Amino acid sequence: MAGAVHCGIKSTDQEDLTILASEADASVAIMTTTNQVVGAPVLWLRRILPRGAGKARAIVVNSGCSNVCTGPHGLGDAEAMATQTGELLGCPAEKVLVASTGIIGHRLPMTKVRKGIAAAAGRLNLRQDSAVLRGMMTTDTREKSAVVQTTIGGKTVTVAGIVKGSGMIAPSMATMIALITTDVAISPANLRKALLAACAGSFNAITVDSDTSTSDTVAMFASGKAGNKSLKPGTRDYARFAAALAEVCYELARSVVIDGEGATKLVEVAVTGARSDAEAKIAAKSVADSPLFKCAIHGGDPNWGRIAAALGKSSAKIDPDKLKIRIGGVMIFSGGTGRKFDLPRVEAHLAGPEVNVACDLGLGKGKFTALTCDLSREYITINADYHT
Amino acid sequence: MAGAVHCGIKSTDQEDLTILASEADASVAIMTTTNQVVGAPVLWLRRILPRGAGKARAIVVNSGCSNVCTGPHGLGDAEAMATQTGELLGCPAEKVLVASTGIIGHRLPMTKVRKGIAAAAGRLNLRQDSAVLRGMMTTDTREKSAVVQTTIGGKTVTVAGIVKGSGMIAPSMATMIALITTDVAISPANLRKALLAACAGSFNAITVDSDTSTSDTVAMFASGKAGNKSLKPGTRDYARFAAALAEVCYELARSVVIDGEGATKLVEVAVTGARSDAEAKIAAKSVADSPLFKCAIHGGDPNWGRIAAALGKSSAKIDPDKLKIRIGGVMIFSGGTGRKFDLPRVEAHLAGPEVNVACDLGLGKGKFTALTCDLSREYITINADYHT
Repeated sequence: MAGAVHCGIKSTDQEDLTILASEADASVAIMTTTNQVVGAPVLWLRRILPRGAGKARAIVVNSGCSNVCTGPHGLGDAEAMATQTGELLGCPAEKVLVASTGIIGHRLPMTKVRKGIAAAAGRLNLRQDSAVLRGMMTTDTREKSAVVQTTIGGKTVTVAGIVKGSGMIAPSMATMIALITTDVAISPANLRKALLAACAGSFNAITVDSDTSTSDTVAMFASGKAGNKSLKPGTRDYARFAAALAEVCYELARSVVIDGEGATKLVEVAVTGARSDAEAKIAAKSVADSPLFKCAIHGGDPNWGRIAAALGKSSAKIDPDKLKIRIGGVMIFSGGTGRKFDLPRVEAHLAGPEVNVACDLGLGKGKFTALTCDLSREYITINADYHT
Repeated sequence: MAGAVHCGIKSTDQEDLTILASEADASVAIMTTTNQVVGAPVLWLRRILPRGAGKARAIVVNSGCSNVCTGPHGLGDAEAMATQTGELLGCPAEKVLVASTGIIGHRLPMTKVRKGIAAAAGRLNLRQDSAVLRGMMTTDTREKSAVVQTTIGGKTVTVAGIVKGSGMIAPSMATMIALITTDVAISPANLRKALLAACAGSFNAITVDSDTSTSDTVAMFASGKAGNKSLKPGTRDYARFAAALAEVCYELARSVVIDGEGATKLVEVAVTGARSDAEAKIAAKSVADSPLFKCAIHGGDPNWGRIAAALGKSSAKIDPDKLKIRIGGVMIFSGGTGRKFDLPRVEAHLAGPEVNVACDLGLGKGKFTALTCDLSREYITINADYHT
C-alpha cells in the first residue's frame, strides 16, 4: 500500500511525503551510502537494521529536506517520523524505515511533516499511482519505475521498484533513494544477498557527476504474499528471482542516469580484457567520470584521445599497444594509435540518445560496464544557480 | 637563449615552436606524467634521462600537436626533432629535450616542424620575449611566467619559469609543460631533488578538471653561470635556492589554475587536522575535483553541504562532529551542522577572484592545500565544441 501528499516541505505544490507500507511484517534489506558524512535517516536505518536486513512494515520518505548535518536533533526528527508512522500503522517505530532527500543542513519542518504523515497514512491504497513517486523527487524531471514478473514454484511473482535521483550520483553502495517491493517469500538475510548482487551491476555501476551522496539508500521489501517456499540461494527459483531483481535494479539505475542533471545522452562504458573485474571497474569509472570525455560525448566528438587518457590516469593496468577502443561497435583505436574509420557512421551513433563505448584492455578476463551521461551547460546552470 | 616561430602546425598564425638553449651543457631535471598513456616526447625524455636528471643543452617544444598515440612513428619524430636541433646547436641528439602539446592522435607535420626548428634556431637570443611562451600555448588565454631572485654565496641568482596549461589539468607528477631555468650551479641529482620538493606543493597540488594529461612535463635547466659553489642539500644556500624554486613553481602552477578552461575564480582548498599529510591531500583533492562544489563556487553559494559530502566520499578519515569548515575565514560549519554566519561577508568573499575554503578535520596534524577553479558553462563550451 502506498500514499503520498504535499505537506509544504517543498515550496512548489508537488508531493513531498510518501509512505509505503506492507499489510504485515515483510523481509527487508537495505543498502546505504558509503559516504562518511551520512544523513540522520541513514543513521536511523543502521540502528534498526544493524545487519542491513530484518523485518519491517513500512518506509516513510520525504523530499525537499535531506535531514543531513542537522546536529543532534536530526536523529530525533527521523525517529519521530518512524514513531508517528508506526502508531498510525499499529507497529513499533523500529519497524518503520525513514529516508529523506533534498537540501543539506536544514532541520525538517516537523509540524508540516507530522501533518503530512497523518494525511499520507490516511490515504494508503493499493493503486501504485505516480504521486507516490513524485513525493520523493527533487531535481528529477521524470518519474522512474520498473516492474518485472517471473514464475516461481508455478506462481507469478512481481518485483517492482521506484527511484529518485538526478545529481550527486556516484553511488558506491546505492543511489539516492530506491524502493523495491516483491511478493516473494524470502528471509531477510537471503533478500539482502540478492539485493547486494543486483546492486553491483546497477546502482553501483552508475555515475552522473562522481559525487557520492550522503543519503543514498536502496530499501527492499518482500511481503511473502506470493506463498512460495522461502527462497534459498543455490536453487533455480532463487536464481530466477535474483535475475528479476537484477533487471529491476538495472532499469532503475539506468533511468537515473538518463535523468542525470543536464544529461542529453546515456553513455555505456564497457571495459573488457582487464586483469580483474575490480580493475575493469576502476578503468570504466575513470572514463565515465572524466569531464573531458563527457564534454566530448556532448559535442558528438569520437575523441578516443580523451578515452585513452582517462584509462591511463586510472590505477588499473593499461598497455596502450594492447588497447582497443570501439564507439557504436566501430573500432577507432588499436595498435597504440587511432585508426581510419567510418566517421559519418560513428557521428550518427554519437548523435543518438544512447552511446556505447567499448574498451578492450587486452590483458585478461576482467570486465565491468559503467553507465554515465554527457556533461552539458545545463548541469552547470542547475548546480551553480541552486542556492543553499 | 630562446627563440620561437610560427611554422604552421597550428592553423592560427600564433607561434607554435619554441627552442630554449643553454650556451653550454646545463644540469637538467625533469618530471613527467604518471598517466600510463604517454606521449612520444615523454618516452624520448625517459630514454635520454632515465633517472630524471642529467646534463643537456636545449629543449625544443611545439604546440598544436602532442605526438601522443601516434604509433611506432611517434618516437622517431620526437628523436628527429632532437637530432636536428642538436645539429644546429652543435650537440648530440641525446642532449636535446623534446616536448609537444596539442591534439592527441595526429602525427607531427614533420616538413613544417623541420623548417620551424631551423628558423627558431636561427633566431635564438637572450631576450625572453613572450613569443617563446606563445610557442607552446594551446587553449591558454594568458602568458604565464614567474621569476624569483635570491642571494647565494653573495651572488644574486635567478630562477625563471614559463608554463602552458589550461585543460586536462590534474597533474600527479607535473602539469602540461613548464620550463624553468636558473643560473645556479648544482648537480643534476640535487637539482632533481629540489624540483621534486618544489612540485609537491605546486604542480602536484592543482586541478582544473581531474583529468591527468598524457604529456605533463616539467623541465628545469641550471646553467651554473652564477659561479656559486655547487649547491648541496642541507646547506643554507640550498635551502634558499629551494625556496626560490618552490615560489616559482607555485606561481606557475597557480597561473595555470587561474587560466583553467572556463575558470572565473581561483579556489584554494586548505585541509588541516588530517590524520596524515597523505590523507589531507586525498581530502583536499576530493573537494577540489567535486563538480558540485565547483558549480556552487561558480554560483557564489557557500554550500558547505557539498564540501562535507566531498570530504566524506574520499578515502581520508572524516568525523563530521569534529569537522570545521571556513570560507574566507568565516566559520560556516562545526559540531556536525551549519552555523549562523555573516552571509553578506561570505558572499562578498565568494564574489571576488580568489576564494579560500579551509577544512579542519580535527583528527591530527596532516595538512595539504589544493588549488582549483570554478566550473562554468564556458568549460563545457570549450570541451564540447572542440573536435578531434
